[in-house]
Amino acid sequence: MATDTIRISEIFGPTIQGEGALIGEPTVFVRTGGCDYRCSWCDTLHAVESDYRHDWTPMTAEAIFAEVERLSGGKPLTLSLSGGNPAIQPLGDLIALGKAKAYRFALETQGSVAAPWFSGLDVLTLSPKGPSSGMDTDWSKFDECLEIAGHSPDIALKIVVFDEADYAYAQDAAARYPKLPLYLQPGNHTPPPADDDDAEIDIDGILARMRWLVDKVAEDQWYDAKILPQLHVLLWGNLRGV
Amino acid sequence: MATDTIRISEIFGPTIQGEGALIGEPTVFVRTGGCDYRCSWCDTLHAVESDYRHDWTPMTAEAIFAEVERLSGGKPLTLSLSGGNPAIQPLGDLIALGKAKAYRFALETQGSVAAPWFSGLDVLTLSPKGPSSGMDTDWSKFDECLEIAGHSPDIALKIVVFDEADYAYAQDAAARYPKLPLYLQPGNHTPPPADDDDAEIDIDGILARMRWLVDKVAEDQWYDAKILPQLHVLLWGNLRGV
Repeated sequence: MATDTIRISEIFGPTIQGEGALIGEPTVFVRTGGCDYRCSWCDTLHAVESDYRHDWTPMTAEAIFAEVERLSGGKPLTLSLSGGNPAIQPLGDLIALGKAKAYRFALETQGSVAAPWFSGLDVLTLSPKGPSSGMDTDWSKFDECLEIAGHSPDIALKIVVFDEADYAYAQDAAARYPKLPLYLQPGNHTPPPADDDDAEIDIDGILARMRWLVDKVAEDQWYDAKILPQLHVLLWGNLRGV
Repeated sequence: MATDTIRISEIFGPTIQGEGALIGEPTVFVRTGGCDYRCSWCDTLHAVESDYRHDWTPMTAEAIFAEVERLSGGKPLTLSLSGGNPAIQPLGDLIALGKAKAYRFALETQGSVAAPWFSGLDVLTLSPKGPSSGMDTDWSKFDECLEIAGHSPDIALKIVVFDEADYAYAQDAAARYPKLPLYLQPGNHTPPPADDDDAEIDIDGILARMRWLVDKVAEDQWYDAKILPQLHVLLWGNLRGV
């Protein structure tokens, strides 16, 4: 079993999904530890930086799902697999366990690692990272993620936008995958440090960026894009576990 | 033509849809004047109160659609028919005109008046009003709305919740229509007066109500309900035309 344990940073909920295609939906979050990216504006450093590795608990799929069942009172709901990059963890058994009990699985990943169990998901959100992140997108890896997921999950693109360069990147990504529903999300320029789970946050600045994004999309007649904020940030700031 | 004119309170956009099933979607709003309800917390009194009737312009479907095309630059998008209660206006010709040019039509109504043109919509949001509104729901009229809409539009329930009584009402409504997607929306207890298009608004109070609602739904394991705020209120307060 040991080789198949999953590194867990936190499991919490039910709360609502704050972002993207499932916004507003009651959800339990399973956040894995570890990431192949180091985005400049990462808002979950406690699940990314190796310094925090000692806070990540190796858990079996059975133990994780038992905790999800406890939190949800045994009533099926949507489970969101997040990170870090959850694609680098062996999540296939967890998905199989949960689906047998009618739980739904959503995954959010940057699309840098393709896992065969993507095809077992209900919703796959691919969130490639624009220039402001400091990361480069390997589109061939991204295409692998799409290919391995196949036609079973609903797939959506979600792109965080801080500035004009990110916006241009989002337009390129949308042109590359014209059939995928697209969500634009204004970035949080005041993400929490890894060691502070309730750091100050510039809500006014985030909302100003969202208004700027709405205006740009309207001016450019980019009517295929949906623009959504991070609701949990508006409701709870940088607080963890909500 | 005169008998078929539509009473228009305002036409504006593109902006994003702030509520419900289409949240975040670029939209042009066509707000009609006049309503058969007088909700205590109405946030569009300028489109409801007869005193403001002189601000409503009778327009033909052709004139309305010409304005929508101008605002959208002739590129098809989603048009939201709102009010007041838009169901009391003759909107069938407008829908036919727009659909011929690939525009999509969403309607929001309380479900008190059934119009035959509901079946031409893409999305029908029925928003019955709970006890805090001071209105009584005629469920037989509501059923008529569902029947006349048929299977062509996507239909969703959206219920504004201010307090425990509204919450219980929402649970009853959901039990009555278990197959309809359900959106719960925290109420704005600081709606603008009819003569003030940018009145002060208690965002903190609205967000507190939303957190209360998220907690209740989680405690009650009511996982079918989605909880969404009015994004436009968070972004622009009570300002009109956005």
